Amino acid sequence: MLTVFVVVVALVSQTAAHYTPDWTSLDARPLPSWYDEAKLGIFIHWGVFSVPGFGSEWFWWHWQGQQPPDQKYVNYMSQNYPPGFTYPEFARQFHAQFFNPDEWADIFKASGAKYVVLTAKHHEGFTNWESPNSWNWNSVDTGPHRDLVGDLAEAVRNRSLHYGLYNSLYEWFHPLYLIDKKNGFKTQEFVLQKLLPELYNMVVRYRPEVIWSDGDWEAPDTYWNSTEFLAWLYNDSPVKDTVVTNDRWGAGCACKHGGYYNCEDKYTPGQLPTHKWEKCTSVDTLSWGYRRNMKMNELLPLAAIIEDLVRTVAFGGNYLLNVGPTPDGMIPPLFEERLRGLGDWLEVNGQAIYSSKPWRVQSENTTVPVWYTSKGLTVYAILTAKPPMSTVKLLAPKASAITQVFLVGNPTPLSWAPVNPGGGLVVLLPELPYTPAQAWTLELDLVQ
Amino acid sequence: MLTVFVVVVALVSQTAAHYTPDWTSLDARPLPSWYDEAKLGIFIHWGVFSVPGFGSEWFWWHWQGQQPPDQKYVNYMSQNYPPGFTYPEFARQFHAQFFNPDEWADIFKASGAKYVVLTAKHHEGFTNWESPNSWNWNSVDTGPHRDLVGDLAEAVRNRSLHYGLYNSLYEWFHPLYLIDKKNGFKTQEFVLQKLLPELYNMVVRYRPEVIWSDGDWEAPDTYWNSTEFLAWLYNDSPVKDTVVTNDRWGAGCACKHGGYYNCEDKYTPGQLPTHKWEKCTSVDTLSWGYRRNMKMNELLPLAAIIEDLVRTVAFGGNYLLNVGPTPDGMIPPLFEERLRGLGDWLEVNGQAIYSSKPWRVQSENTTVPVWYTSKGLTVYAILTAKPPMSTVKLLAPKASAITQVFLVGNPTPLSWAPVNPGGGLVVLLPELPYTPAQAWTLELDLVQ
Amino acid sequence: MLTVFVVVVALVSQTAAHYTPDWTSLDARPLPSWYDEAKLGIFIHWGVFSVPGFGSEWFWWHWQGQQPPDQKYVNYMSQNYPPGFTYPEFARQFHAQFFNPDEWADIFKASGAKYVVLTAKHHEGFTNWESPNSWNWNSVDTGPHRDLVGDLAEAVRNRSLHYGLYNSLYEWFHPLYLIDKKNGFKTQEFVLQKLLPELYNMVVRYRPEVIWSDGDWEAPDTYWNSTEFLAWLYNDSPVKDTVVTNDRWGAGCACKHGGYYNCEDKYTPGQLPTHKWEKCTSVDTLSWGYRRNMKMNELLPLAAIIEDLVRTVAFGGNYLLNVGPTPDGMIPPLFEERLRGLGDWLEVNGQAIYSSKPWRVQSENTTVPVWYTSKGLTVYAILTAKPPMSTVKLLAPKASAITQVFLVGNPTPLSWAPVNPGGGLVVLLPELPYTPAQAWTLELDLVQ
Amino acid sequence: MLTVFVVVVALVSQTAAHYTPDWTSLDARPLPSWYDEAKLGIFIHWGVFSVPGFGSEWFWWHWQGQQPPDQKYVNYMSQNYPPGFTYPEFARQFHAQFFNPDEWADIFKASGAKYVVLTAKHHEGFTNWESPNSWNWNSVDTGPHRDLVGDLAEAVRNRSLHYGLYNSLYEWFHPLYLIDKKNGFKTQEFVLQKLLPELYNMVVRYRPEVIWSDGDWEAPDTYWNSTEFLAWLYNDSPVKDTVVTNDRWGAGCACKHGGYYNCEDKYTPGQLPTHKWEKCTSVDTLSWGYRRNMKMNELLPLAAIIEDLVRTVAFGGNYLLNVGPTPDGMIPPLFEERLRGLGDWLEVNGQAIYSSKPWRVQSENTTVPVWYTSKGLTVYAILTAKPPMSTVKLLAPKASAITQVFLVGNPTPLSWAPVNPGGGLVVLLPELPYTPAQAWTLELDLVQ
Repeated sequence: MLTVFVVVVALVSQTAAHYTPDWTSLDARPLPSWYDEAKLGIFIHWGVFSVPGFGSEWFWWHWQGQQPPDQKYVNYMSQNYPPGFTYPEFARQFHAQFFNPDEWADIFKASGAKYVVLTAKHHEGFTNWESPNSWNWNSVDTGPHRDLVGDLAEAVRNRSLHYGLYNSLYEWFHPLYLIDKKNGFKTQEFVLQKLLPELYNMVVRYRPEVIWSDGDWEAPDTYWNSTEFLAWLYNDSPVKDTVVTNDRWGAGCACKHGGYYNCEDKYTPGQLPTHKWEKCTSVDTLSWGYRRNMKMNELLPLAAIIEDLVRTVAFGGNYLLNVGPTPDGMIPPLFEERLRGLGDWLEVNGQAIYSSKPWRVQSENTTVPVWYTSKGLTVYAILTAKPPMSTVKLLAPKASAITQVFLVGNPTPLSWAPVNPGGGLVVLLPELPYTPAQAWTLELDLVQ
Repeated sequence: MLTVFVVVVALVSQTAAHYTPDWTSLDARPLPSWYDEAKLGIFIHWGVFSVPGFGSEWFWWHWQGQQPPDQKYVNYMSQNYPPGFTYPEFARQFHAQFFNPDEWADIFKASGAKYVVLTAKHHEGFTNWESPNSWNWNSVDTGPHRDLVGDLAEAVRNRSLHYGLYNSLYEWFHPLYLIDKKNGFKTQEFVLQKLLPELYNMVVRYRPEVIWSDGDWEAPDTYWNSTEFLAWLYNDSPVKDTVVTNDRWGAGCACKHGGYYNCEDKYTPGQLPTHKWEKCTSVDTLSWGYRRNMKMNELLPLAAIIEDLVRTVAFGGNYLLNVGPTPDGMIPPLFEERLRGLGDWLEVNGQAIYSSKPWRVQSENTTVPVWYTSKGLTVYAILTAKPPMSTVKLLAPKASAITQVFLVGNPTPLSWAPVNPGGGLVVLLPELPYTPAQAWTLELDLVQ
Repeated sequence: MLTVFVVVVALVSQTAAHYTPDWTSLDARPLPSWYDEAKLGIFIHWGVFSVPGFGSEWFWWHWQGQQPPDQKYVNYMSQNYPPGFTYPEFARQFHAQFFNPDEWADIFKASGAKYVVLTAKHHEGFTNWESPNSWNWNSVDTGPHRDLVGDLAEAVRNRSLHYGLYNSLYEWFHPLYLIDKKNGFKTQEFVLQKLLPELYNMVVRYRPEVIWSDGDWEAPDTYWNSTEFLAWLYNDSPVKDTVVTNDRWGAGCACKHGGYYNCEDKYTPGQLPTHKWEKCTSVDTLSWGYRRNMKMNELLPLAAIIEDLVRTVAFGGNYLLNVGPTPDGMIPPLFEERLRGLGDWLEVNGQAIYSSKPWRVQSENTTVPVWYTSKGLTVYAILTAKPPMSTVKLLAPKASAITQVFLVGNPTPLSWAPVNPGGGLVVLLPELPYTPAQAWTLELDLVQ
Repeated sequence: MLTVFVVVVALVSQTAAHYTPDWTSLDARPLPSWYDEAKLGIFIHWGVFSVPGFGSEWFWWHWQGQQPPDQKYVNYMSQNYPPGFTYPEFARQFHAQFFNPDEWADIFKASGAKYVVLTAKHHEGFTNWESPNSWNWNSVDTGPHRDLVGDLAEAVRNRSLHYGLYNSLYEWFHPLYLIDKKNGFKTQEFVLQKLLPELYNMVVRYRPEVIWSDGDWEAPDTYWNSTEFLAWLYNDSPVKDTVVTNDRWGAGCACKHGGYYNCEDKYTPGQLPTHKWEKCTSVDTLSWGYRRNMKMNELLPLAAIIEDLVRTVAFGGNYLLNVGPTPDGMIPPLFEERLRGLGDWLEVNGQAIYSSKPWRVQSENTTVPVWYTSKGLTVYAILTAKPPMSTVKLLAPKASAITQVFLVGNPTPLSWAPVNPGGGLVVLLPELPYTPAQAWTLELDLVQ
């Protein structure tokens, strides 16, 4: 019935499918290697929600979806907008007139990130490209009058960064979704008429290497046709060899099915997860989308970001750091300062992060907090506080006579002494260079 | 694949279908009798096009559809709106804040009309009810925030008028329609995902007794699935016994298939059509939709309307007179004056119109223009100009000794004299009452 | 202190002033003759109030001025506009994009009017020209971006019509006026800084032949400096020889001082006033300014307008008929129809109106209502209803053997007979021509 | 003629005036002492220009004032706004809905500033309080609907900060100003009707302790009536004892007349000015007003701000650091970060700044750049770079046996050694604490 869909089904049946549309088969697919090596990505929440820029990107839901509505949003609208003003009317103010994808990509590159994930469609349903299934509710028909997804894709790829797209399965207020929901998800009008044609279109058109799925939790994967979609994605899509996805493909999938896991909140602290995972966090601690009234103390300081990144990598995760651009298309200067500050630190310390593997031990706190990563016989000990004196004691590494220690960024080997026969070493530090990041890396060569 | 559609198909197959989905069967259906008896209907063009109110209801097409675009519209927009302003943004100004369906229906009733046809959806695609297939592009989600189709239905039916809905099959700019068009109408994404679910929904929900179909001409009826829809409409819909439709169900259908014909321009003048037909015309000679810059001399005078009605009825047609309300929901006063003036004339002369049949002769112009209608043995001769003297000669009727002649509205029989043995009579007129309609009816009883 | 003002005062002192700034002198000025001869003028209320087009041109006052505010307006605003929306923001929608002064002037000319009076500034303070004392609150700085007063002046004068301007002395919400008001009108900040510089500017720039003063009632003429202004106007202004004004120049001036009187409501019905007066009335019986929600039955029918004109002229008044154009710059079609209908009637019957004088008797109602005017030895009897039979009896005129009677527009003398020796005559009428005006004129030559 | 003005003149003549309205008398007034002691103020540019937030606060002028207009602004407007859109229409979007004066004042207090200067009226003429001379072009009648000047005054004073107001004498587009300008400033319509009544009103109402005058350069002080105003300000105004002003009171006044001087660009670098002066600079190097498209590298880093402050104070100046709030009423987070960073540094080093005096020598650059200030027998040497080694050599101070040296913030006296018999000393530094400010202060007690 749907042309694209029919073509897709045809393709599926013609090819030698490696994966079958069931979780056993799909979950067995190895994660393409680029992803684990990348470690750091930039997440961008940008949409019509950036226009009110109030509360969070869940503005519409808080205002008109949840029962009872959040009075903060109700009041904000009644105090500033005429009765009858609708959320979609915000779209006309999504001008993006200053949006310069090359400037954005320069900042992302400078941050040291290796991939970039843009919200192609959030729960509001607005698509940042010209989806034929979202007439007048996309960035080409209205607002920016521009293919935001495509324009950023080009700039990002020109800088050798990987490009991913966030896609919400559900749409809070789509009438067909509401019909299905009312029917206990026994009908699939929304999925077949809206979601899937659009999602196939998006993948074919933009070849994203990350599909960051979200908005899955109200219905089972069988409603979303998730396994069929993923089988196509892995077998026949133009990104079948490089694409990675997460685990939000239906109620109950989190931490169980899909690609990498986005379920950090369920992990036991201090324990190394056994499956590749990603932590996503936002510079603005209160919102993923732009907020016009954000204050300094609501935003993550650089040191906190770096400590978070370091801890995540030490425990085998990727770190996806979010910024919310303005509806005009600017990355607020403080966000830019954070991203560039992060890149400045990675410029020196990146060898401890990129392509690293978790080590035997992930952290210790003997002198100051220390996080370990490794590459072959080299172990990196990243200190996220300045030691009170000029030595630091590390108990986990087992050094030997051939062990050498360096302060990363400094070619002179450091003096060190063993702590006791079983292991551990005390390192004599040079004066640590000033950095707003407040983190320094010790490279321990040939330790165990 | 589409739930509603599936249910509908199921229903179709379960019932004892009188009509099969082919033109031979469908065209054989007798027209429900109320329609021919009604003679006069009011047509209402109301939609987002009423907001610019410039040029005509084809504003969007002239501005952005046709190639090359009409510079009049391009200039109008560039001189009055910001770059990037989109047609759908007009919807927010479709306030309808003064819309009082009872006041409208009072005016329609006072006009003497027996049915009312509202544009439920014009070529722009905006639905005047909450169609789940037209999210945020309907009168409940935006603009009026009101079920215009339903609210008017109730007011109209409360006054014992029949209620019909205009529906455009095509939508100029719907992306799925444009895909089908590009595919030479070999795909039906638009029809199956958008048009049909919506049309079934509309019929079931509002039970219109007229479906005034339009916008069919670019594709064959097989693309639109017209015969399947009509079979359902005639067999199983809630209005199966009373609904009438016109002949706009696909390229080539006009004057050939469907219900009554809306193809007046193809008739030979002066010749009585053999199939029931309807003439629709607009008080504003330049537009069906409201125009903010209309001038008096562009609007039909009352006398012209009445002559047009009379001629149409004499030739067997129905007359559907159009008014374009303002985006505020008002019927402009001059339109109201025309409708009430028409009703004033029908109050006296309606017996020559309602439930009448075309007569053996439709018109003559011996003294002044005269139009004939009939009811059994009574013939009505409607004069649409004042005779220069106090007599009028009618050559067509064959009078006899028992023939009586009256000025309708006047109980006194008039003197008359035969013209010659073969027929014709000269009637001595009383002083004709003043009427801005400039038309008077002679009732000829027992003539041939 | 104010340059213009200083120059003006200088001019005043240099010339041989005929009039001194006191009422005795000013009231003695003879009214320029063109005014009484003209009889009919068109009044135009156009301003920012035309944008809401709701209630009347007093919208702002009803909404935010009077205490307590009128809930109808308060609700209208709260239901349709955001909190904090201000009345001046309506100005941006005063587009006047269809304003064609030649088309307007053609309609006014066709109405038979001899002068046109436009609201140059109503109580809201918005000036329809570029007043330097009304920055950003005038039609050139905002809204139309056009000199409305000047553009209409040219079109009106090109058709040999006289041009007048309405000017409100007070401004409801001007902060300087409110200060003066609070001070019991013992300060004149508003008058000296705002009102007078602007008024002199207006007269010098546009040379209006009518200054239709209004908004005077809250303060005495001494506050407004009215006599000084009028002395300058009559002695030294560029329109000193032809200008006429009315009697609204301060509390207590109405019916007492100034030029002609605008105090019809204080006259004893049926009694001939001794001072030249003017009746102003609006086609829309509920408002002078445009109302978007006007209905047919709220508007004056043509026959009522003509009867009102005829009665006014019979009693020595001028008739100033008002229309409210739309913010787009259109005269609504029904208003145009009324004006053209009035002109059609005056085309035939104007000789009984223009340059006529009240007669010895103003009216009688023997057969039907009859109103008298005169020119020398000719008396006009204007019938504002159709006599039930073909004769009409007139008791007031004293006919003699040489008396001749005509139906105006018909060259054939009518038969008539004396009623009794003391006077009166019965006229045998021909068939009266159909006219929507429902009024006919009998010319009685050589009666007393 | 102007009531307020008359009252003022009366007051002037009644009191025992210390100052006469001439520069000799006015320039002799001693500067109130609080000002020199304060050293640091915060400047706030906030107005309708914050709404476009594009280019700079001179937006209107660049767009529509200068000849030829700046195409960057012309294009920006034509690409984003409808034809006919006027600058004053931006006012409606000056919502200030998040404006919390207490939060602002907390930030200003935390910055270490001792006074705050807000733009009460910039060249656009919009007043941030309800000026009766600026109807509908002020923050109470439109936009914020709030007394911004008054609300901030209260919050600032509650934190014991001094409060000043910026006032532009000229207004680019005021029609009365344009008339005076056209008249070669031989008329004073603008000054007498607009500027002075408003300025007196502002002083009486808000009692500012700084009047930061601007926009004086097109006309001489005699046009502005500057000396009369200042005589009143110093003799009779409610702030006569504490108010300070600058030197922008007419063409030719800069660096010559008034209070402190704002003419830093005319000073010889490296030379100590003999008259109290103030340097004002903006965190955003490209604009005083908010810019929506500012980027990180266009904004001053904290270290640059601190070096600028230190140099200014060393040379006897005050430092007025500017931030441009958003039209929503927020101080952008990066600006907040700068202000708090500045306060963090002053928390430790403020003793070298507040109430300090320039020293015998202002700076040297022997080891690193060093700036001197003094208090009695204590000299402060402020290092604005980190010395490459752990000593710093200072040649200017003449130390003796009783000389003591401290790192400010550290109670331990530092070791030092004389350089040669004539003077100079070498100080042994401790590890300098990390600070993003990159500046440290040495306190030298009992040096010459």
